[in-house]
Amino acid sequence: MSPSLPTVQQTEMHPSRWGSPDRATALPESARDIVDLVFGADDRPALVDPPLAAPAIEPALLEGLVAVLGAEHVLTDDETRRLRTRGKSTPDLLRARAGDLADAPDAVVRPGSHDEVAAVLAFAVEHHLAVVPFGGGTSVTGGLVARREGFAGVLSLDLVRMKRLVSVDHVSMTATLEPGLRGPEAEALLAAEGVTLGHFPQSFEYATIGGFAATRSSGQSSAGFGRFDALVVGLTVATPRGRLDLGTAPANAAGPDLRQLILGSEGTFGVITSVTVRVRKVAEVRVYEGWRWPSFAEGAAAMRTLAQGGLLPTVIRLSDEAETSINLADPSSVGGEGATGCLMITGYEGERAAVDAKQAAVTAVLTGLGGTGVGTEPGDKWAHGRFDAPYLRDSMLDVGVLVETLETATFWSNVDRLYADVKAALERELGQPSIVLCHISHVYETGCSLYFTVAAKESDDPLAQWGRAKAAASDAMIAAGATITHHHAVGTDHQRWFAEEIGPLGVSVLRAVKADLDPTGILNPGVLIP
Amino acid sequence: MSPSLPTVQQTEMHPSRWGSPDRATALPESARDIVDLVFGADDRPALVDPPLAAPAIEPALLEGLVAVLGAEHVLTDDETRRLRTRGKSTPDLLRARAGDLADAPDAVVRPGSHDEVAAVLAFAVEHHLAVVPFGGGTSVTGGLVARREGFAGVLSLDLVRMKRLVSVDHVSMTATLEPGLRGPEAEALLAAEGVTLGHFPQSFEYATIGGFAATRSSGQSSAGFGRFDALVVGLTVATPRGRLDLGTAPANAAGPDLRQLILGSEGTFGVITSVTVRVRKVAEVRVYEGWRWPSFAEGAAAMRTLAQGGLLPTVIRLSDEAETSINLADPSSVGGEGATGCLMITGYEGERAAVDAKQAAVTAVLTGLGGTGVGTEPGDKWAHGRFDAPYLRDSMLDVGVLVETLETATFWSNVDRLYADVKAALERELGQPSIVLCHISHVYETGCSLYFTVAAKESDDPLAQWGRAKAAASDAMIAAGATITHHHAVGTDHQRWFAEEIGPLGVSVLRAVKADLDPTGILNPGVLIP
Repeated sequence: MSPSLPTVQQTEMHPSRWGSPDRATALPESARDIVDLVFGADDRPALVDPPLAAPAIEPALLEGLVAVLGAEHVLTDDETRRLRTRGKSTPDLLRARAGDLADAPDAVVRPGSHDEVAAVLAFAVEHHLAVVPFGGGTSVTGGLVARREGFAGVLSLDLVRMKRLVSVDHVSMTATLEPGLRGPEAEALLAAEGVTLGHFPQSFEYATIGGFAATRSSGQSSAGFGRFDALVVGLTVATPRGRLDLGTAPANAAGPDLRQLILGSEGTFGVITSVTVRVRKVAEVRVYEGWRWPSFAEGAAAMRTLAQGGLLPTVIRLSDEAETSINLADPSSVGGEGATGCLMITGYEGERAAVDAKQAAVTAVLTGLGGTGVGTEPGDKWAHGRFDAPYLRDSMLDVGVLVETLETATFWSNVDRLYADVKAALERELGQPSIVLCHISHVYETGCSLYFTVAAKESDDPLAQWGRAKAAASDAMIAAGATITHHHAVGTDHQRWFAEEIGPLGVSVLRAVKADLDPTGILNPGVLIP
Repeated sequence: MSPSLPTVQQTEMHPSRWGSPDRATALPESARDIVDLVFGADDRPALVDPPLAAPAIEPALLEGLVAVLGAEHVLTDDETRRLRTRGKSTPDLLRARAGDLADAPDAVVRPGSHDEVAAVLAFAVEHHLAVVPFGGGTSVTGGLVARREGFAGVLSLDLVRMKRLVSVDHVSMTATLEPGLRGPEAEALLAAEGVTLGHFPQSFEYATIGGFAATRSSGQSSAGFGRFDALVVGLTVATPRGRLDLGTAPANAAGPDLRQLILGSEGTFGVITSVTVRVRKVAEVRVYEGWRWPSFAEGAAAMRTLAQGGLLPTVIRLSDEAETSINLADPSSVGGEGATGCLMITGYEGERAAVDAKQAAVTAVLTGLGGTGVGTEPGDKWAHGRFDAPYLRDSMLDVGVLVETLETATFWSNVDRLYADVKAALERELGQPSIVLCHISHVYETGCSLYFTVAAKESDDPLAQWGRAKAAASDAMIAAGATITHHHAVGTDHQRWFAEEIGPLGVSVLRAVKADLDPTGILNPGVLIP
């Protein structure tokens, strides 16, 4: 594992905050002054643990689960249930901050193997219990909020005991991992074998292998390593109808690719119990640098040139003018050297010779296109702070400033329109004072993602405030023919637009698959499938 | 379009032969002598057009179809039906040579647009007619042989009128193509726009865009361009339940990837009416060269090193010792310079500077691993003859020698076993005299394909003879945990092993999707789905 990656985080996350309490901080004084100037800082009362309703599940059912898993793996205490309540979207945090933990599961079950997962599902089918697979709890789209109505209870199926590195195939360069491994845990086990998965989404410290697969996660090194769905060569899935073992070759022509039906299924078709992924040798060197562009459009055009020329670095990201001037990961930088044009980060990871060659080639192209290299400082700063933004969001919420992100993707020819339309929708609905920032962090030959971050003075009803902005932005995405999500998945929050994106027949197909694999509909009911 | 690519072939293929009659040739004298020596040449009588049963479809239904498409696009003459009978596997040819055209469609319909396809499907649902989508007719796995029982007739839905290049997006580098375009036709239209698809399977001259998508084709430049399924960013599909429009971004996290459910569906879920693909600039230069390796294992290890080092040429293929010594595309070479070790072909296509750089880097790696460069002659010979092997098969069948191919794929650590087991199964079942040749022509970071060619003296019942060998080879693939097909698809011939590969629950999922999109089961009944 790279020394720059954080160590394994076992701390479980409180429903009202991101990450480890040890790393929670107040805004730095300089940042607070600026936030106060822009939004008016408005200190909120310290958070207390909101009360939790008693588990709404018959004791006899809990006893049945105990018979399956043992008493130590069927938990109903408030603390355990609280820590499995919802995910980490800003609305999730706002609800918890407002004392609303109504979506807490009734019990948390912790199977330790594929067979135990299957046994839990069989029990849940028999007694019509809703089952919510739980990995890192990092969903930002309501993916952990199951429909409760009609069920005898809601179980959070926590994969925390399934954390083995099952095998590494050094010839094929693949590894089989259990779903409960968090990003740093997986990387540590793989590093001991000299290999890396190379998947570093912002949620890396908490999110799990199973969650990456179930939601089609995309990491900050996607240009060099590919999206998570592109890394997966095999899957084992426990469904109410039995077991699926998928993946006989890197690729084949044996019918539709069923792996691609499980990837992105968000726990609604089955519980992923192992994932076989492509791995690579641990990088010998890592270099991150900054480039300055006169405009977002010119920087984006340069990214397109690299992608279409087959010359992508391992990491490439580009902030628009607003994001460049307000570096969220380092609010003290506002108005500093970063305030002109647009900042691009390029990163190279691999063996020394390959890194040098790629860096030289990319540098030639970017310089030729009008970019100005600004050295390694901005790159190192980005690499150092890249998992910290969610902590900053908490600090902002603490002073009454709503911060949230959303993202989309489209083909290159549609990027300008999509950018303008989503930005305009957010600015219109959020009103003033607010800021809307954007970056491109995932590029392909044919298109790229757009990732927006917003900050606004909280209104009296911040949930409704954000709801309007989110809906307007989502409408703009669909109207532009773009996707409702590049890497945050559908959950419950994106369903309305997801249904428009794939059309009624696409929804019908998903329902048919769901009905086949989960006939009684116990798996994450209400999530993904409209 | 490259000057080395063949010109557009409009000739339709006779059910007993490959390709254009103009290009059919007898074996060259030198080759014939060798074939005679090895197998005993046994001249077969000249082929005649076998008789065809009258169309088994009510005249009223034909009138109904005429009302939908016009009389000129509803054809029942013998010649048209004969040319849409089965595909191009050796068993298909043997059956036609034996006068058996029992699988001829009852009528050939030629819709000219998505809406006309939809109208034909609606009519077929209403009257319970089986519908077999027909592109180039190049299936080698029985993909065009629909089950007839229980239907009011079998329609061949010929996409020959849907040959438009709908649009090219030069910014996103994508193109939208209609399904009936054959490989050379698509490349010619794209070349006029300065771009290429880069998809060159052996069936290139006849196979179509729709067929490439429906069967997950893989081309000879897959190392540089990717498999066809990797090129597809969007699809439009006409199903009996309505229209699917898929593809809002290069990639996304909006649920399972439904494009990957249509790719490989072999006409059983719907008729693909347009395909949006990634394109690239037409190559400035093309260089093909040969490398000599002491053994197949050493050559394969070198391919693995290139793939895992991110250093693949555009084309890379490696013949085993037997295939190297008997170059099927040039039988006169037997025993010549090609007779020692294993021949690898590497090809580079692109801009001059990029080609030079890649070639230099690959050359350094291959030399370091013990390969010996043998110049451009073997590469040019391969590039020149690469679409000719199917003609040679006909020449061999003409003298009583059964020639056929089959293919599979696996992860690198399993290649040695898979190679040995499939080869042994083929040799055992074919008996003597026979030859079994193999090459690797598609490589990935985690694995590769194996493509076998066999030749054997025809027994009195060559269909049964090949059936036994094919079954034994297929059993060996599944027993080794490999795939039943890397790029030939499932059709009817691979169903038994396909069912083992994806398991009963995988089959159940496909049936559920089929039941949803094609509730009355009219689309390619009996194909793909067990």
